[in-house]
Amino acid sequence: MDTSFFENVQPKENSLPERVADQISRLIVERQLSGGDKLPNEFELAEQLHVGRGTIREAVKLLVSRNVLVIRRGIGTYIANRPGQIEDPLGFAYYPDQTRLCMDLLEVRTNLEPWVAATAAERATQSDMEILRDKCLVVERDILEGKDHLPNDKEFHIAVAQCTQNMVVPSLIPIITFSVGLFGTMTEYALRSETIVDHRAITDAICRHDAAEAERRMRQHLEKNRVELERVLREMDSKNQAQNPRIHGFSKGK
Amino acid sequence: MDTSFFENVQPKENSLPERVADQISRLIVERQLSGGDKLPNEFELAEQLHVGRGTIREAVKLLVSRNVLVIRRGIGTYIANRPGQIEDPLGFAYYPDQTRLCMDLLEVRTNLEPWVAATAAERATQSDMEILRDKCLVVERDILEGKDHLPNDKEFHIAVAQCTQNMVVPSLIPIITFSVGLFGTMTEYALRSETIVDHRAITDAICRHDAAEAERRMRQHLEKNRVELERVLREMDSKNQAQNPRIHGFSKGK
Repeated sequence: MDTSFFENVQPKENSLPERVADQISRLIVERQLSGGDKLPNEFELAEQLHVGRGTIREAVKLLVSRNVLVIRRGIGTYIANRPGQIEDPLGFAYYPDQTRLCMDLLEVRTNLEPWVAATAAERATQSDMEILRDKCLVVERDILEGKDHLPNDKEFHIAVAQCTQNMVVPSLIPIITFSVGLFGTMTEYALRSETIVDHRAITDAICRHDAAEAERRMRQHLEKNRVELERVLREMDSKNQAQNPRIHGFSKGK
Repeated sequence: MDTSFFENVQPKENSLPERVADQISRLIVERQLSGGDKLPNEFELAEQLHVGRGTIREAVKLLVSRNVLVIRRGIGTYIANRPGQIEDPLGFAYYPDQTRLCMDLLEVRTNLEPWVAATAAERATQSDMEILRDKCLVVERDILEGKDHLPNDKEFHIAVAQCTQNMVVPSLIPIITFSVGLFGTMTEYALRSETIVDHRAITDAICRHDAAEAERRMRQHLEKNRVELERVLREMDSKNQAQNPRIHGFSKGK
């Protein structure tokens, strides 16, 4: 291990544990450790980084809270499965106007996901297609059994993204589908049967490598969502005048 | 304040400070606190959430590490400016293949930013345009003075995004321009004069509300970046055979 790697500690305002956390992050990258790999133990890290074990422990805590590391009690500290990726990384839960957030997210999806579907159709491998068909079936089963299909609906869109072979797209989809859960409970019943038809059509087009059709079907799918969302919002607006209800515990904050 | 709001603590594996951190997050949303607002003090929070002050302090630490709160010593705890938004939220620094990451990010930009530019041209307000022109000039000045223009280059693309009035897009741009800094130092000299011309053309088209031209110019701008990046990668590949150099301290990890 090249120890000169640790020498350029920036003279920033950051606390010592913060800086040590940065060094551990770089060590992970440097050693190409990935999800499930074990982090060197406290003693080794303390020696390498010339700090006390207490500081190492503080730094590890910071990295756990950022989903870079996971602690398995009595066993050791490991690299998280998707290191550094956190739920709601853009802080959408803190946006005061959740209604507008939903509309804006859908606008972004409408401008990205049709391309994602077309690219998926061009590049999907056999194993991608098997996973996609499987995710498609799971959503159908959820819907037919009257379960909440939204978590698997999100997984379906991630599976489409994975067919693109672009390593960034599957990470972006969970962000821009943040709204799926938000208005889901209100719209899911109306769109359940259409979701089955749409997802099947998208899946089939991708598996036939028909990029134009995959794009067209994805566009239609999102357009239906937009129309439904607008209908729900209009209904909510008229109810709001009387009751001022909350969406999933968030204040609506116009 | 509706205290029933705090009753639905999920019986999860999360530690008490984790759960209290979630409750404080929801309190921020509920009270519509935003960047710069003061958090209620420890005593009030401890009483409201029925936990000790030590737990509140632990929870606040977690939220500081997630950029939800900032502590001003001796003054109090405040809501962060972009609560919940962290640098590199998708953990790109941990991707083993940084070269492929750059190409994939550029592919995403190529499929999103031309639409962003067109929408910016359709919706930009007078004040958006003033900010955009200003950012455009700052990048030009950096380039003409031989400074590192990349931080302001990113700001320029965020300013374009802000013209769309879509609240999600300005948050997405910093993510997908992550690569700008990564290969920047290698490509900046070659593209400096073209950047001035391209940014001006994009700015002018947006300020004329010419959506088609804004889109076309943004597409061209990103295409030049792609060609340059490919040229640099080819050069690096041939050098690599001899030296195996590192990109910004990251291992290349093919």
